[in-house]
Amino acid sequence: MDKSRKARVVVIGAGFGGLWAVRTLAGTTCDILVLDRNNYHTFLALLYQVAAAELEAEDIAYPVRSIFGKLPAVDFALAQARRIDIEKRVVETDNQAFPYDYLILATGSVPHSFGIRGVEEHAFFLKTLEEGVTLKNHIICSFERASQQIDTEGITGILTFVIVGGGATGVEYAGALSELVHGPIVSDYRKINFLSVRIILLEGTDSLIGHMPESIRSYTFDRLRKMGVEVRLQTKVVEVTPDSVILNGGETIFTRTVVWTAGVRGEPLAFHSGIPTGRDGRVSVLPTLQIPAYPEIYVVGDLARIDINGYSLPMVAQVAIQSAVAAAQNIGRQIVGLEPLTFRYHDRGSMITIGRNSAGVAIGSRTYTGFFAWLLWLVIHLFNLIGFRNRMMVLINWAWDYLLYERAVRFVFPSEASTSPKSSSCADNSGGDADRKKK
Amino acid sequence: MDKSRKARVVVIGAGFGGLWAVRTLAGTTCDILVLDRNNYHTFLALLYQVAAAELEAEDIAYPVRSIFGKLPAVDFALAQARRIDIEKRVVETDNQAFPYDYLILATGSVPHSFGIRGVEEHAFFLKTLEEGVTLKNHIICSFERASQQIDTEGITGILTFVIVGGGATGVEYAGALSELVHGPIVSDYRKINFLSVRIILLEGTDSLIGHMPESIRSYTFDRLRKMGVEVRLQTKVVEVTPDSVILNGGETIFTRTVVWTAGVRGEPLAFHSGIPTGRDGRVSVLPTLQIPAYPEIYVVGDLARIDINGYSLPMVAQVAIQSAVAAAQNIGRQIVGLEPLTFRYHDRGSMITIGRNSAGVAIGSRTYTGFFAWLLWLVIHLFNLIGFRNRMMVLINWAWDYLLYERAVRFVFPSEASTSPKSSSCADNSGGDADRKKK
Repeated sequence: MDKSRKARVVVIGAGFGGLWAVRTLAGTTCDILVLDRNNYHTFLALLYQVAAAELEAEDIAYPVRSIFGKLPAVDFALAQARRIDIEKRVVETDNQAFPYDYLILATGSVPHSFGIRGVEEHAFFLKTLEEGVTLKNHIICSFERASQQIDTEGITGILTFVIVGGGATGVEYAGALSELVHGPIVSDYRKINFLSVRIILLEGTDSLIGHMPESIRSYTFDRLRKMGVEVRLQTKVVEVTPDSVILNGGETIFTRTVVWTAGVRGEPLAFHSGIPTGRDGRVSVLPTLQIPAYPEIYVVGDLARIDINGYSLPMVAQVAIQSAVAAAQNIGRQIVGLEPLTFRYHDRGSMITIGRNSAGVAIGSRTYTGFFAWLLWLVIHLFNLIGFRNRMMVLINWAWDYLLYERAVRFVFPSEASTSPKSSSCADNSGGDADRKKK
Repeated sequence: MDKSRKARVVVIGAGFGGLWAVRTLAGTTCDILVLDRNNYHTFLALLYQVAAAELEAEDIAYPVRSIFGKLPAVDFALAQARRIDIEKRVVETDNQAFPYDYLILATGSVPHSFGIRGVEEHAFFLKTLEEGVTLKNHIICSFERASQQIDTEGITGILTFVIVGGGATGVEYAGALSELVHGPIVSDYRKINFLSVRIILLEGTDSLIGHMPESIRSYTFDRLRKMGVEVRLQTKVVEVTPDSVILNGGETIFTRTVVWTAGVRGEPLAFHSGIPTGRDGRVSVLPTLQIPAYPEIYVVGDLARIDINGYSLPMVAQVAIQSAVAAAQNIGRQIVGLEPLTFRYHDRGSMITIGRNSAGVAIGSRTYTGFFAWLLWLVIHLFNLIGFRNRMMVLINWAWDYLLYERAVRFVFPSEASTSPKSSSCADNSGGDADRKKK
């Protein structure tokens, strides 16, 4: 590397990892380029609320160029990275190739079907803003379909909603969906018999949110049951079809809606670039967050498998933020000729929300449940949203939902089979034609 | 019709016409069914602001079921009407068929290409929420493309924006686009030379907004020029290609963005149902707003050609609202055995906004321009939005734009070539491949 020019750092991904890496790097002497396939950052912690018609997609998104607009050393390119040439130190995209001196890979994770038949084709995912909107549209379309269904035969499947995976996303979406359906939806559709609505949460192990303390786990289980969610533990899915899920015991549940939150794996860019990845697509990093043999490449966030004392850090926002800061600091050290340092993780606790006035928070050895935990959850999430305007919009939407038991954004929009091949044109196809729905 | 049951009125379309028809009918003794292909009403007067990244799509949409939720006689079906069997008195949709005793057709208007080559394939329209979002995404993608363009050759076309049609929509969008580009966009893209940005407004006649008084016309013309919009009168388009527009004089303007606001025609449902329509697809109605020979069918709003003293009423919201109320009242009269009355139109004036602090308002023989007119425009539009929440959201977004010269919602979302075949995946295709762009 030519010593007379500034080091060029490329950061792939504008999630929590990417943002915090850039924020940290901006204090050092280097040129920074951020690549993302979207021109906005998505606050994924609230994505399930978009899918439950509580928030608008725009409320949890923030333009990347606004975030970095005031940092002269930072540039952004809207580009889908296709492959990293780790020998030539170049990121290839569909348009340009971007050379780097240092690289931070922060591309996150994608849904993992574990090879189970029909999941990719028929299940809904909840990992991108598009998927959140697609799922919301599908849920509302389901009730529009049910309200026009003449033969009652198809109704059962249309009004049965199955969520697979009892982790945080599955639990939070089950709660939010239950509140959507048993609140605003009931008053919208007077013709529908809501006794036929089922929301089923399937979990393969013997507990929901296994990473949380026992008191929060049992609180969550009870709350969901009280909200009308059928929680089924030790239940595995063996196949998803256009109109059912088949369980490991052989049982078939008829449903047109399978939300797959059962697992994630590393986003495949690293794998496609020849960087060694595990079975879950993640990159095992050195204690410094570098990859072996390529000291200029760092991996942070969900994509990184960070083992500390034989224990692998969870794929959560706190790990993404802290690992990104550490990686950026290590690059800063390398630039001035110092050795990178070992990453140390500080567990700040974890939280989950189930619904109105109802959450669980674990900080250190303390746990809180109920209204206080819910308030805490609310404040922390508002605070972590980027941008004053987004905070205001979310607060207004939450206040609206809370005080009026309303969901203001229950549109089917965009209406055309647009954001995903799984979505459908609701108006044109209100019947039982599963193949067209999932075309 | 069986006298022992209530009359069944079907209203097709949930625009201004449909909403006001239902609101009026709800006071009479009948069952009302509203059909629309969307489950929301769109406040079209502000659609150009969605396309200029000023407002979120959800801000100008309102769920139909919320509007009618408290009226027990009103039902809604999300359905695309395909054909009306005017002999059998049945509306056919892709799913069910809906019989009626009385029918109000309020399906509005669609863009009219006048058969000019390439318009349908390559121009952007601005008549639906999806089209507004698609155009916004395209505009922002254009700057993302320009910022990555290595050869400067393609830049000219990417940064030239042509709006065809100097009516209200064309004028308002030209102004809003100019403010978007020369404000927030400039600060986002430091690499782009903004001297190469052109916004061109083409009008076939010798004046912009021909329906407005002369003082407002000349004010508008001057304001647009001061905002950097190239206004070209007496200029007609003969062809639109993927990367240019060709004018009647033979001149070619290289551009990747042609926004077609040059004309509208009646939505084709009436035509497809064998109801006589004019060359512009509109239905010439009787003075009572019925169609000849079918006294149970009314046509209101843009779809109706309403001639009063040899003068045809314009396709504006006020005509839609007033004709819808009159049609509903006439149905109420028919139900109780009275004759329908002749429709009388009361001109409430017209207004146009060009940009910040800048609008024109004509009420009776009075005209206002400048800041006061802009305030009036603002208040009236806020007031006409449906729903307190939408008003609040729009007000916040406007205040934001106004005070901070910001546009908070400049996302490319949904990112995939989704809402229209004209949109493109911005990240994957930032180069000069016009065919893929318009695929």
